[in-house]
Amino acid sequence: MIYTAIMGHGVVGSGVAEIMLGHTDMINHKIKNEIDVKYILDLRDFNDLSYSDKFIKDFELIVNDDDIKIVVEVMGGINPAYDFVKRCLLAGKSVVTSNKELVAAKGAELLAIANEKNVNFLFEASVGGGIPILRPIAQCLSANEITEVKGILNGTTNYILNKMIVDNMDFDSALSLAQEMGFAEKNPAADIEGHDACRKICILAALAFGKHVYPEQVSTDGITNITLTDVEYADSFDCAIKLIGSAKKLENGKIAASVKPMLVSHSNILSDVDGVFNAIMVTGDSVGDVMFYGKGAGKMATASAVVADIMDCAKHLNARKYVDWIEGSNDYVIKPDEKVRLYVYIQSDDYDMLCTQFTTLFSDNTWHTKNDYKKEIAFITNEDYESVLMEKINSINCDNIKVMHTLF
Amino acid sequence: MIYTAIMGHGVVGSGVAEIMLGHTDMINHKIKNEIDVKYILDLRDFNDLSYSDKFIKDFELIVNDDDIKIVVEVMGGINPAYDFVKRCLLAGKSVVTSNKELVAAKGAELLAIANEKNVNFLFEASVGGGIPILRPIAQCLSANEITEVKGILNGTTNYILNKMIVDNMDFDSALSLAQEMGFAEKNPAADIEGHDACRKICILAALAFGKHVYPEQVSTDGITNITLTDVEYADSFDCAIKLIGSAKKLENGKIAASVKPMLVSHSNILSDVDGVFNAIMVTGDSVGDVMFYGKGAGKMATASAVVADIMDCAKHLNARKYVDWIEGSNDYVIKPDEKVRLYVYIQSDDYDMLCTQFTTLFSDNTWHTKNDYKKEIAFITNEDYESVLMEKINSINCDNIKVMHTLF
Repeated sequence: MIYTAIMGHGVVGSGVAEIMLGHTDMINHKIKNEIDVKYILDLRDFNDLSYSDKFIKDFELIVNDDDIKIVVEVMGGINPAYDFVKRCLLAGKSVVTSNKELVAAKGAELLAIANEKNVNFLFEASVGGGIPILRPIAQCLSANEITEVKGILNGTTNYILNKMIVDNMDFDSALSLAQEMGFAEKNPAADIEGHDACRKICILAALAFGKHVYPEQVSTDGITNITLTDVEYADSFDCAIKLIGSAKKLENGKIAASVKPMLVSHSNILSDVDGVFNAIMVTGDSVGDVMFYGKGAGKMATASAVVADIMDCAKHLNARKYVDWIEGSNDYVIKPDEKVRLYVYIQSDDYDMLCTQFTTLFSDNTWHTKNDYKKEIAFITNEDYESVLMEKINSINCDNIKVMHTLF
Repeated sequence: MIYTAIMGHGVVGSGVAEIMLGHTDMINHKIKNEIDVKYILDLRDFNDLSYSDKFIKDFELIVNDDDIKIVVEVMGGINPAYDFVKRCLLAGKSVVTSNKELVAAKGAELLAIANEKNVNFLFEASVGGGIPILRPIAQCLSANEITEVKGILNGTTNYILNKMIVDNMDFDSALSLAQEMGFAEKNPAADIEGHDACRKICILAALAFGKHVYPEQVSTDGITNITLTDVEYADSFDCAIKLIGSAKKLENGKIAASVKPMLVSHSNILSDVDGVFNAIMVTGDSVGDVMFYGKGAGKMATASAVVADIMDCAKHLNARKYVDWIEGSNDYVIKPDEKVRLYVYIQSDDYDMLCTQFTTLFSDNTWHTKNDYKKEIAFITNEDYESVLMEKINSINCDNIKVMHTLF
């Protein structure tokens, strides 16, 4: 019998308990062993549940119980999750977590402890909810050198942007609807300001390239400044605006990483990812582009990924899975000056001057739209170094300028 | 040192040799061991290669060499691959293959031998080339009950259909172009008649549902009868024609499995999978729909999946991966009478009669187009049992009727 403990009985934790306790036969059959949940740690009371006898409030009971071989951390946040996970690993227990904030901040350190103690630290559910992505990168693509990872990593923002595109809603209305539908939290900052996507791209980059990328190293923009006007211009350029997290290995061995809204061309399948769906595209030197797609959140989807990790731990109690990366460094993540095409929106009351400047600076630009009535110009630049393009754009005499990157 | 042997030095085999011999350091680092290719079995001579000393023509050297722990079968076809693989497994060697024909025909038997001998039999490259799909189903989605697997499993046919849709080419011209581009073989039957997709859906179904589905049990149609007219009508119904392989678990525990061209609605992301790309959608009870996308063929992509399996074998020489399914049975795969919506195309010189019959039989059908000049009607039926719809359709007095299934 393999005993487990679940720390946290919130949305994901209760889903994990449901699957573990409701599908025990299926799980035991697949792992060719018997597994049980011994404790569930939560400060709240859950007296009405059929498994209420499993609840405890004292973490020490878990860490000091030698029977417990696998601990599931689904509390979220850094504290006390970090301390609890670290102590469990040090005590020789495998740990499974869905906590992207924890893995993005402390992944390298916790993996090193797991390695030292010859136990597993798995976190498939921390990126893309139930979508298989971390294990495929680590195992199936292991014969590839991975050069880039990018995608739609946050379902809430994708839902909002999609509503703006399809139903012509402005940002605030789409956000309200997402909140009503349960797709956005009351305090939506982590989603709409890009922090959630940032944590996920940190984990993906670390796994793909072998070295930790910390959230504060990733240039992160959210979608709060996207207007219906941008969405409409994007559409006129045959693009959809998506919040894209990306990490790319540069020739000098360093990493470029960002989270930002981009105009994604309809020739790229990422533009077709709608609603609350996530999609992560991985580029390998042999395999080319492969994409993983599905709902990136949701109680049972995320819980099923956690349980799959628990099952993997149970099958490999004495054999470590080779998921590893080393600590990052200050100069590892840089902002390279690369050739790009930029979307530019400019509105000016001095419209004649604007038009003159546009013609002078971007006379060869084929993709542009003018609206004489609103006194605005929107265009996608030809490809050039970002620094060259930004110098041109900044030389335009106007306060109301918006610039976004594109993905073709 | 772990010694391997590669059987077959064709397109995939030479790719495997290139990766194994050219990226030895990366591979050794990842598997935390040393690995080498001892033999390459091929009847042809390859004297000019830097590794020509590894070539042998006698299989017995491999099967009788106790140093060889992992054998790679990339010869293709059933004979002699089946005999060779079986003997290697019986000799206690792990086997990796990309041979979908072999796995689709003999998978259960070979897995049972691998199980008995406590070695691995892995075949990630047999479905979707380099796209990770079998391992994600077996491991990442292991906490799910999988209810359905479907998708675009053949890049050649998808390329041809896409050319018909985008460039208005007829089938023969698109096939010729695919052959020129190297996407279709000189004898394209296995692709265009659906046999290749059939083998892949057999493997996916077996893995997802735990019991072998044999190719001859799968109702298989190819794309040779698809006309430009069908493509255009499909477009008018906001659909794209795709060759879809699918396998679904029914409530009675049996399986419905087919390969057939379908009208896929643009609301389904499978309709956006263009060119030589493959996409496989897996439906799990907890995770919902997840999709895996990428180029489903190509020398290096497929080879990289083979090498990833070799690396996995090397890491688990004494620990079997839990990939297993049992032998199938005669009554396991059935053709259920389910509610469907069908695409129907009818052309008749007795056009007035046709219109009268259509109005009588399908008066409530909202999705239809008539072409009085060509004397044809195309429509998508309302949802009803397939038997009911087919009875109506067969009662129409006309020889030139075509029916296709739809996917919304």
